[in-house]
Amino acid sequence: MRTRAAVAIEAGKPLEVMEVNLEGPKAGEVLVEIKATGICHTDEFTLSGADPEGLFPAILGHEGAGVVLEVGPGVTSLKPGDHVIPLYTPECRECEYCLNPKTNLCQAIRETQGQGLMPDGTSRFSMLDGTPILHYMGCSTFANHTVMPEIALAKIRPDAPFDKVCYIGCGVTTGVGAVINTAKVEIGSRAIVFGLGGIGLNVIQGLRLAGADQIVGVDLNDSKREMAERFGMTDFVNPKNVEGPIVPHLVELTKGGADYTFDATGNVGVMRDALEAAHKGWGESIIIGVAPAGAEISTRPFQLVTGRSWRGTAFGGARGRTDVPKIVDWYMDGKIEIDPMITHTLSLEDINKGFDLMHAGESIRAVVVY
Amino acid sequence: MRTRAAVAIEAGKPLEVMEVNLEGPKAGEVLVEIKATGICHTDEFTLSGADPEGLFPAILGHEGAGVVLEVGPGVTSLKPGDHVIPLYTPECRECEYCLNPKTNLCQAIRETQGQGLMPDGTSRFSMLDGTPILHYMGCSTFANHTVMPEIALAKIRPDAPFDKVCYIGCGVTTGVGAVINTAKVEIGSRAIVFGLGGIGLNVIQGLRLAGADQIVGVDLNDSKREMAERFGMTDFVNPKNVEGPIVPHLVELTKGGADYTFDATGNVGVMRDALEAAHKGWGESIIIGVAPAGAEISTRPFQLVTGRSWRGTAFGGARGRTDVPKIVDWYMDGKIEIDPMITHTLSLEDINKGFDLMHAGESIRAVVVY
Ligand SMILES: NC(=O)c1ccc[n+]([C@@H]2O[C@H](COP(=O)([O-])OP(=O)(O)OC[C@H]3O[C@@H](n4cnc5c(N)ncnc54)[C@H](O)[C@@H]3O)[C@@H](O)[C@H]2O)c1
Ligand SMILES: NC(=O)c1ccc[n+]([C@@H]2O[C@H](COP(=O)([O-])OP(=O)(O)OC[C@H]3O[C@@H](n4cnc5c(N)ncnc54)[C@H](O)[C@@H]3O)[C@@H](O)[C@H]2O)c1
Repeated sequence: MRTRAAVAIEAGKPLEVMEVNLEGPKAGEVLVEIKATGICHTDEFTLSGADPEGLFPAILGHEGAGVVLEVGPGVTSLKPGDHVIPLYTPECRECEYCLNPKTNLCQAIRETQGQGLMPDGTSRFSMLDGTPILHYMGCSTFANHTVMPEIALAKIRPDAPFDKVCYIGCGVTTGVGAVINTAKVEIGSRAIVFGLGGIGLNVIQGLRLAGADQIVGVDLNDSKREMAERFGMTDFVNPKNVEGPIVPHLVELTKGGADYTFDATGNVGVMRDALEAAHKGWGESIIIGVAPAGAEISTRPFQLVTGRSWRGTAFGGARGRTDVPKIVDWYMDGKIEIDPMITHTLSLEDINKGFDLMHAGESIRAVVVY
Repeated sequence: MRTRAAVAIEAGKPLEVMEVNLEGPKAGEVLVEIKATGICHTDEFTLSGADPEGLFPAILGHEGAGVVLEVGPGVTSLKPGDHVIPLYTPECRECEYCLNPKTNLCQAIRETQGQGLMPDGTSRFSMLDGTPILHYMGCSTFANHTVMPEIALAKIRPDAPFDKVCYIGCGVTTGVGAVINTAKVEIGSRAIVFGLGGIGLNVIQGLRLAGADQIVGVDLNDSKREMAERFGMTDFVNPKNVEGPIVPHLVELTKGGADYTFDATGNVGVMRDALEAAHKGWGESIIIGVAPAGAEISTRPFQLVTGRSWRGTAFGGARGRTDVPKIVDWYMDGKIEIDPMITHTLSLEDINKGFDLMHAGESIRAVVVY
């Protein structure tokens, strides 16, 4: 079949919207009509050329929602008409990782996914002249139709609006999940969130949901304050307005350091501050941000010997097929909010404007609606 | 009263054995006759002058066992004749830290202890000419008699031999506790221990006690192999005999990385290897070693985002008054071994020989018996 897609022809160039060929689903695969997709920093990271593992030409996008149109042989858990959210971290429920309750990093299709291919080692997308186009993070939601492995699709309730719950495909789950699944924050905790972009706001609402007592937000940009307060932030700190180093200031503000700190900036200096602002004896610091290639985090080991711990999270520690439908329910039940974070809605033709808005820091999340 | 003690007059000089004055116990304090004391690397670290917080003159030693001779006003949990192990990490059971199940770092007397003083801000020791001598880590077990706060003494069974269980005052508890309390290693785990000195051997026997399936020991010194095998090591790796970097070698040996890794070297490069040799998704790396002043650990944050966690442990995460008596029971019941690790027994007069043996790498633990 043919579908319309925004294709990343090469690094550093705008996406090109065009007709492409899409082969139907093979065994274990599913054809999905994407109804909406968010534009995330990870797409931008790859498009910019900064991602050393980026491959081109490719159809980017990994934060979508849509409807199953057709299933390949052997697919049992989905049928045409089901509403789904694509998962860049699949959940096969059979590999060593899925069977270990300590991780969500299913490895079933990792190798081919990293190469921009379906599990059989081929691509379903091609240009009209036949040139193959690679998949991206196993999703490629910047195409109106895509093919995905069954294990990489979360089945969600049919009444959830695509243009909102697509954000659960990455940002919401990453932020809320970091709190609920990775940190397992307890009621009454004190927390600090560094970076109040789309991820940081979702960490904040995760903390509110978990019953945290104090939720400190840290950002260099004062304009982030209002929205963060709306999602539950109790204290705002702009490092530019603090005299001297930020860590002692935050330790004092949290009466000895925070029980949990989160980096949602991707800056390795901030990651260090986040660790060191965690409470002696028991503070945990969780890295969410993705650092530039080659950047390293450092600290004195004494920080760990005196009881802080340093951890990270990918896709909010969520097992997608199990957890994503629950997060959709939380949204539909009003336990978490998404609507105010979808600041812009665009057509596929205007997708490059979404990247411009991100660069300008004007959007929290721009969503393309097909 | 007067007692004999080995006094650290200044950094970098041998200890001087002499008579010193000792004032009796004040309120909440206890006079203890020390029967035996181990010589630990931390004593050596301070004596050498490498410890930026080292203070002189002081009576070092923090790994002892003895008998209560006299109790000050208000002491309720101990009486003359009780056998005790001094605790450099006390357990007041009242402070914010003691009341938080996530930490063992009681802060009740931290400040004065760090200054070499009793909780009232004074010292009980002095030279015969009246010059005050500082306490060390709240213990000063290199004196035949010492005064300690009640909250810093673990009461142990009277049939345990002082010249063996003194080692539980630091090394045994640090190593075994890192496994049991901090890492909470599960039956069937794979583990790697870096550094097979006194601490590393105790980590190894902790792992055996916890039912680990694979216990890899890493040391630059082949002569450490035999003893480590005796304590449960299943695989030995000398990095000098590995071609290329050690991490991929260890990851292969442990079939994907270890569930738990432990640094017992104090080398920050080794700490990084230990983290990176932990299994993707769930591996935990525990820092036990104390690094040189100013040294920093580093890694790419990706190591954490993909599921490894970096932690540390002090005194093996043990709450001394509660846990040390249990570890003494484990020794008396044959669950853990100590005797083969006590390689040398000395008189107080010969204490400097104990430091020489340590420098030469000839002792695992040298113990002074009074
Ligand atoms: N681990 C995962 O699974 C995962 C998933 C998605 C995104 N991410 C990463 O999360 C990070 C945040 O994503 P986002 O979409 O929220 O980005 P964003 O750009 O919208 O937000 C980043 C925020 O950090 C603030 N900031 C930047 N430098 C700062 C500093 N030094 N101190 C304080 N604040 C600072 C910015 O002002 C901005 O508000 C990115 O690194 C992204 O790649 C990780
Ligand atoms: N966290 C705590 O509560 C605590 C308590 C006591 C001791 N410690 C620390 O634990 C560490 C170990 O103490 P110990 O008494 O066992 O010391 P040790 O000197 O007896 O043993 C260290 C071992 O590490 C080996 N080693 C050194 N460099 C190495 C390298 N690059 N690779 C592999 N092996 C290497 C040595 O050959 C030696 O066998 C020290 O740093 C000590 O200060 C920590």
